[in-house]
Amino acid sequence: MSAEVNAVVCLSGGLDSCVTLYEALAREGAVAALHFTYGQRTSAREREAFDAICDHAGVRERLAVEQPALRAIGGSALTDTSLEVPTTDPRAAMPTTDAAVPTTESDAATPPTDPGDAIPITYVPFRNGQILSVACAWAEALGATAVYVGAVEEDSSGYPDCRQEFFEAFARAVDAGTRPDTRIRIETPVLHRDKAGIVRRGTELDAPLHLTWSCYTESDVACGTCESCRLRLRGFERAGVVDPIPYRDR
Amino acid sequence: MSAEVNAVVCLSGGLDSCVTLYEALAREGAVAALHFTYGQRTSAREREAFDAICDHAGVRERLAVEQPALRAIGGSALTDTSLEVPTTDPRAAMPTTDAAVPTTESDAATPPTDPGDAIPITYVPFRNGQILSVACAWAEALGATAVYVGAVEEDSSGYPDCRQEFFEAFARAVDAGTRPDTRIRIETPVLHRDKAGIVRRGTELDAPLHLTWSCYTESDVACGTCESCRLRLRGFERAGVVDPIPYRDR
Repeated sequence: MSAEVNAVVCLSGGLDSCVTLYEALAREGAVAALHFTYGQRTSAREREAFDAICDHAGVRERLAVEQPALRAIGGSALTDTSLEVPTTDPRAAMPTTDAAVPTTESDAATPPTDPGDAIPITYVPFRNGQILSVACAWAEALGATAVYVGAVEEDSSGYPDCRQEFFEAFARAVDAGTRPDTRIRIETPVLHRDKAGIVRRGTELDAPLHLTWSCYTESDVACGTCESCRLRLRGFERAGVVDPIPYRDR
Repeated sequence: MSAEVNAVVCLSGGLDSCVTLYEALAREGAVAALHFTYGQRTSAREREAFDAICDHAGVRERLAVEQPALRAIGGSALTDTSLEVPTTDPRAAMPTTDAAVPTTESDAATPPTDPGDAIPITYVPFRNGQILSVACAWAEALGATAVYVGAVEEDSSGYPDCRQEFFEAFARAVDAGTRPDTRIRIETPVLHRDKAGIVRRGTELDAPLHLTWSCYTESDVACGTCESCRLRLRGFERAGVVDPIPYRDR
């Protein structure tokens, strides 16, 4: 059987999920790390970041699973090729960077929205629901009592599955759908932080930010110019911290 | 874009999900069908049944996705090879038959349970949560207002994610985690039926039971002796209906 762990952490290999992992380690002790692949362009590089961060953190219990449904389901400009991807919305430009944390730059131009409501058309239906259902299943199997996910409310500008209300309702569904003695908290330690705040917190926690991968176009040296790189770089800049990874175009 | 549908139906290709599809067609009109594969032994045969039933029913909107997490996650005798699979529990013998409907024979010997609670050790953690999260995501993408799943409460003898309470809590989480204008009901039309009742209802609905596949050992002619075949045959017998599929050993 598996070594005992207290929490499952969704770890894409990006900045937000890495800091989330270190919050979990600080609060929970032994944790397990879960990674999703779904045919994204920089899939292998993200997996490499996942393993490097786990190695650094001493996380031995790891699960990397394919979840093609995350890509197969349309209804979003990210997955439905019949919809035009708006280039002003960072999330549109980075479908591949962070399985757990769909990110939209909150202080960029307002993302385009559907006529009917305020949800950006880049919204991937119930993405965090899909991710959390697997994470909570694994948590129950391991006997863990918490699932950590690096969702960021401000970054996600209206994605309904990035709100506190959703995480609370999902936790109640997990409570109803698991063994009577299973209690799984859903923890979102960076939910209310901005990117600079996440960088600062990661630095405080001595998280290996040098091992994280955010670029969605390159897998060797980060480009420094894609929306994901720009978001990340601005976060470091505002936090007054030097981004430890090299960039090609800087 | 996709044709308009009113509901998504989880369709493994087995008896319960086929009858569930026909309930959905009767109640909802146009539906879409969702199928999961996760490396089960009779995967190709189940997929064939899925397509044959959809063809027969005129369901054009179909999605078959791999969901390896359904198998990768331990904690059950079905997926964790370090646990012994109890042979008296039909669900243990048929991990492969019905992605949406983990079935335990309710009137067979009482399944073995964990010392700590009344959940059979063949329970796969949060299986219906994993299935429903994908189904609800697709429903939102399609603009459908219901998800149908062929769970059977009596058959599942204590699986927490086969109870009405779970489906209700999950629907609330979906409501919180999807667009403000998205409303998705979770419908479980065979939840309170036994196998004979499901056969009778399928016959009333003129469901193509001859196209369903239940055998978990064979992919050409059903064996008639595995637990899944026996459960099915007894259901037909008690319903006073002749099972229309051929069996090798009968």
